Amino acid sequence: MLDQDQGIEHNEYNGLVYSRQRKDSSFPRGTVHLYNEDQSRPGRSITGFPHIKRTYHLHAGIKRLFKNDSFKAEEKLDGYNLRVFSHAGRLLAATRGGFICPFSTEWAGIWAEEYDLDGFFRDYPGHYLCGEVLGDNPYNRQRGVDLSPGAHFFVFEVCKPDGTFLPVSTKEELLREYGLPAVKELGTFNALQGEELYALLRDLNSRGKEGVVLKSPDSSRRMKFVTPECDIQDIKDGLEVGFDLDMGFFQSRYMRVVYFVQELGLDKDEYSRKLGRAFMDGIPVSENYQGAREEYTVYLSSRNTWQSLLSMLISQIKIRTLETSWQHVRGREMLKVRFARIYTRSGKRYQRMIKGVLHQD
Amino acid sequence: MLDQDQGIEHNEYNGLVYSRQRKDSSFPRGTVHLYNEDQSRPGRSITGFPHIKRTYHLHAGIKRLFKNDSFKAEEKLDGYNLRVFSHAGRLLAATRGGFICPFSTEWAGIWAEEYDLDGFFRDYPGHYLCGEVLGDNPYNRQRGVDLSPGAHFFVFEVCKPDGTFLPVSTKEELLREYGLPAVKELGTFNALQGEELYALLRDLNSRGKEGVVLKSPDSSRRMKFVTPECDIQDIKDGLEVGFDLDMGFFQSRYMRVVYFVQELGLDKDEYSRKLGRAFMDGIPVSENYQGAREEYTVYLSSRNTWQSLLSMLISQIKIRTLETSWQHVRGREMLKVRFARIYTRSGKRYQRMIKGVLHQD
Repeated sequence: MLDQDQGIEHNEYNGLVYSRQRKDSSFPRGTVHLYNEDQSRPGRSITGFPHIKRTYHLHAGIKRLFKNDSFKAEEKLDGYNLRVFSHAGRLLAATRGGFICPFSTEWAGIWAEEYDLDGFFRDYPGHYLCGEVLGDNPYNRQRGVDLSPGAHFFVFEVCKPDGTFLPVSTKEELLREYGLPAVKELGTFNALQGEELYALLRDLNSRGKEGVVLKSPDSSRRMKFVTPECDIQDIKDGLEVGFDLDMGFFQSRYMRVVYFVQELGLDKDEYSRKLGRAFMDGIPVSENYQGAREEYTVYLSSRNTWQSLLSMLISQIKIRTLETSWQHVRGREMLKVRFARIYTRSGKRYQRMIKGVLHQD
Repeated sequence: MLDQDQGIEHNEYNGLVYSRQRKDSSFPRGTVHLYNEDQSRPGRSITGFPHIKRTYHLHAGIKRLFKNDSFKAEEKLDGYNLRVFSHAGRLLAATRGGFICPFSTEWAGIWAEEYDLDGFFRDYPGHYLCGEVLGDNPYNRQRGVDLSPGAHFFVFEVCKPDGTFLPVSTKEELLREYGLPAVKELGTFNALQGEELYALLRDLNSRGKEGVVLKSPDSSRRMKFVTPECDIQDIKDGLEVGFDLDMGFFQSRYMRVVYFVQELGLDKDEYSRKLGRAFMDGIPVSENYQGAREEYTVYLSSRNTWQSLLSMLISQIKIRTLETSWQHVRGREMLKVRFARIYTRSGKRYQRMIKGVLHQD
């Protein structure tokens, strides 16, 4: 069911009918439209999470966006974007694209046992929580994450019913009040404190962290800035499935690495070696090449949830289930599923390259 | 004047009417159609130079193309492709795209004084010479070329009137007989002599040479293979004007580097460093960035030739003349012109990056 004029796709999740905004129109892409009880027309919308812009030059970008105003820095996490909300007595979770996700919704229920989500939504029924999911998940391969098994949610914005964000300090107070997990606050800066911000980013980089999101205190202006260690790792990991990615994926990353190294005064030799090594190690060359795939592990309450998740995933990409077993995780028995995303296009291209098939530029 | 159905464009060079094949149809792209004296219909065609395929894996590619047959190796030169022919008493030169080029045609006249081109075309009036132009030229920035000032022509194929190539040994004999300049012959090999060919390529690589073209003795099957030193240098130089190039330009090169290093057993650390350094040094980061340009020098007989060349060049790209002067070159007074190709798109993109303009991925 697809209403192409509005870029709206009608979906259903466990008996709940909703639509998602497939592309920007009067609502941004990823907006979830929820219906009234008579299902006649949208009763409420969970606004799509806005794109956060980047800059290649941190100091110049800050001066452009914030002038001399102060701004807050928060740690940017490398997971997937999720909006958690309460509707018709149910706790639900929508991905960036606006799908109500069976995996994420189930985990929202677990997070509600670990944190006082119920209290928050009882007091703020129309608000919703935007955050990053880290740990075992079906969307984002995790690297060097030191968390207990299963999925973990870290809130970075609290949205009012009209889709605008709460001011940063109000958000921080609310999250503290209800004891909800949040991304790390890294301090308040302004354009004159360039050297302090550089020191912060060098430290995040040296610990392999992704980077920062910078926000005006009212959270209306935002930008992000990522570290070369993260970009270089992305290049290495991305190359394995590189023909299934936008070509811009690699270009924007190697460009960012060079600009970061220059602006923050990192060692050019060291980062030349690391960047080159990402290409050297990321591109598959083995004669025993088996094709392009990424392995994921997820923990679910039941085979039913896996079936729902699987049917969502296979609408996007080929999936191979590798192993299922029951495990004790976060205080409950859960179905552990290891599966692989199969990147057919990359697999075929690399096969041809390794086999020396002649080609024209 | 454009005949879109046939992909044919009608042109004129110094009173000579011709057409060029803008895209492959019954004739390959770059074919030059010459007219009879009454100009009623094409009297003769200079076939477009065929694409030569590549492989990412030398040994596997050789086995595919040549099986166990022997093949000839010739040095691949890094210049621009030119076809020189004689028509209606005039010596003419056409670029890969099928333009009769005022610069190249003038230099063909100079080469005819240095070598016995006249003798060759007197005896083989319907044949034509395909070769690479090195040295000062308007199309291909030269690196580490140790030649006297001006343009130099090196023949790699002799074409029969029907557009097919002479067998390699016949070509070599003819070029020797008329004393015409040729690309370097590097020997005869077969798929069992992989190690010898690897040694040859390692040597070319260590001397910064571009690579090899491998041909069956009858020159009907051909493939090319380039060295990582050349690809890495291309990446560095290409990045300066990178937003004006195909994105595939960089991807194919860093992939080739990795496959070459692996197959020919080069040092991975050394080439990681070199590859990374190409990105580090190739991407402009200076606050005093002045825009993307490439500088070229050409030597011409007169300002008229420069005007003809310039009007050809500016149909493709913005040109800025930097300096003109008269110089004694190759035994004659010639107009030396330094000019720059201005890459507007790359210049603007890098300006925005350096100035920290916020952007969305």
